[in-house]
Amino acid sequence: MTNPVLVEVLRGAVVESAHRGAIAVFEADGKPVWEIGDTARSAVKAIQALPLVESGAANAYGFGNRELALACASHSGEPAHVELAWAMLAKAGLDETALECGAHWPSSHAATVALARAGKAPNALHNNCSGKHAGFLCTCVHAGIAHRGYVKSGHASQEMVRDAMQAVTGAAHDFHHCGTDGCSIPTYAVPLRSFALGFARMATGVGFEPVRAKAAKRLLSACMAEPFLVAGTGRADVALMEAAPDRIFVKGGAEGVYCAALPELGLGIALKCDDGAGRAAEVMVAACIARLLHADKALAAKLIEQAHPPIESRIGAKVGALRPTAALS
Amino acid sequence: MTNPVLVEVLRGAVVESAHRGAIAVFEADGKPVWEIGDTARSAVKAIQALPLVESGAANAYGFGNRELALACASHSGEPAHVELAWAMLAKAGLDETALECGAHWPSSHAATVALARAGKAPNALHNNCSGKHAGFLCTCVHAGIAHRGYVKSGHASQEMVRDAMQAVTGAAHDFHHCGTDGCSIPTYAVPLRSFALGFARMATGVGFEPVRAKAAKRLLSACMAEPFLVAGTGRADVALMEAAPDRIFVKGGAEGVYCAALPELGLGIALKCDDGAGRAAEVMVAACIARLLHADKALAAKLIEQAHPPIESRIGAKVGALRPTAALS
Repeated sequence: MTNPVLVEVLRGAVVESAHRGAIAVFEADGKPVWEIGDTARSAVKAIQALPLVESGAANAYGFGNRELALACASHSGEPAHVELAWAMLAKAGLDETALECGAHWPSSHAATVALARAGKAPNALHNNCSGKHAGFLCTCVHAGIAHRGYVKSGHASQEMVRDAMQAVTGAAHDFHHCGTDGCSIPTYAVPLRSFALGFARMATGVGFEPVRAKAAKRLLSACMAEPFLVAGTGRADVALMEAAPDRIFVKGGAEGVYCAALPELGLGIALKCDDGAGRAAEVMVAACIARLLHADKALAAKLIEQAHPPIESRIGAKVGALRPTAALS
Repeated sequence: MTNPVLVEVLRGAVVESAHRGAIAVFEADGKPVWEIGDTARSAVKAIQALPLVESGAANAYGFGNRELALACASHSGEPAHVELAWAMLAKAGLDETALECGAHWPSSHAATVALARAGKAPNALHNNCSGKHAGFLCTCVHAGIAHRGYVKSGHASQEMVRDAMQAVTGAAHDFHHCGTDGCSIPTYAVPLRSFALGFARMATGVGFEPVRAKAAKRLLSACMAEPFLVAGTGRADVALMEAAPDRIFVKGGAEGVYCAALPELGLGIALKCDDGAGRAAEVMVAACIARLLHADKALAAKLIEQAHPPIESRIGAKVGALRPTAALS
């Protein structure tokens, strides 16, 4: 596998580092629109919130855009994220002790400093996946499933997630290609193009039963309505979704994976930076969407700017930048 | 440039990400010992502490191994690093207001939390380069050079550094291939193999005047004697140097660069992870040194273990690992 260089890192005029990667853009009927590189098998997490809506749990607990966005999030552990995850659990009569994702300091540096200044330590609510896990737990409680061990492969909660992911992507989620995510749930190695197809279906509902089509649309709409809750202050996902409200869905994952959807074009996008770098995956997804939405010149210009983030010295001088290569334009 | 994959990132049994790179290992007389990939032009910082010793400043201020190690460091901003950088400046009658490297929160997460808990904010002494900058400033004061603007290209301080780097590496340090480092000093794009050769010379003194040979040996010895001061708690550089005291010198730099020396073999090593990832560069340098020191079986086994760092979930379960590829063994 030798995927092309898609992003270069400049210091002054010198290319200091280079990131290779692969991109798949699909329509919901399975038509490939744009592919770069070998869309190799790659682990990714997404689509996992469908059971929360389809089971009726989201309605039972009165969850709106904010809660559904957080259920799809890799959030920064800022106070608004932490408080909302707590409130979701409270609706199901639970608290943070039910979470099995583990605790870590907020990925937001400012939130970490504020927490330490207050003399506090993080708990599982600060885990970037706490909203997703709150969604799993609410689904269990609503469906009358014992929630202990809900993160484990074979638990009813993860079986629901696996069923949804298989159906949406059309790819087998095979126990032989199953790993464990940082938040302890199973994660499956699935071809990148299956995720592109899956997100085209999520955005359009093509090929879904009405209940699933509605749930999928509700989840993507929630994320586009509440980008901050999907990520956090200063995050690329927020900037991309805010660049064109209700027109762009993006979600970054671990190891340089991005999934995205452009409902107006009926397209799903999945990409992976070979080396797992988030900084390069952010450039790739911005450049990819800029190309696909090129007809809207003002929006494309804004996205292309986002695809060239500066590198600054510690005193804030611009000393370099990232840029997409010709392969992406 | 398509360098080979040198490091793979595993989740369970699945290769989730891959890092390409290049390695150069040289003897001091210019004989290449081992080269992988295209040792492309690449910015790196090193050898910059020679003027501190050669100018007589280090002796004048009574600097021993600890101060010289810190002058070569990218430290984690822990209290011991900060206090020593302050003490070095105090010897020259200066304080942190003379530093022009900029302030940032300690790269040590624990040090960041402790600083915030104490209600404090970081200053330039917490910058990972503060020891190096303290060295520049001490050299200026000792030599009677006005120190304001010491970070700028063309200032006598940076001219001394450039002269030393050109002489040691044998490569032109060209203003047309000059960028600006995160700590605001000029940084030059130089072939990787020139750095491998330069560190072979630093370790052996071959080709140097006696004053420089002695200064180079003193600096590398200081780093090997005080590895913690060169990096910090839990850092790969410390683990590698502590694996074989006084036998291994390593120094990681920005954007996935490593320089190293093995005095007993008279070898200098320079490597670069194409994509700039530190996690992969750490594996590359451990695997490279394990191969070069294979005759010491116990040491090689320890280094090979360090070349396979685990990936853990947030609850501390081992869910994956990094590993060097066959190209490195």
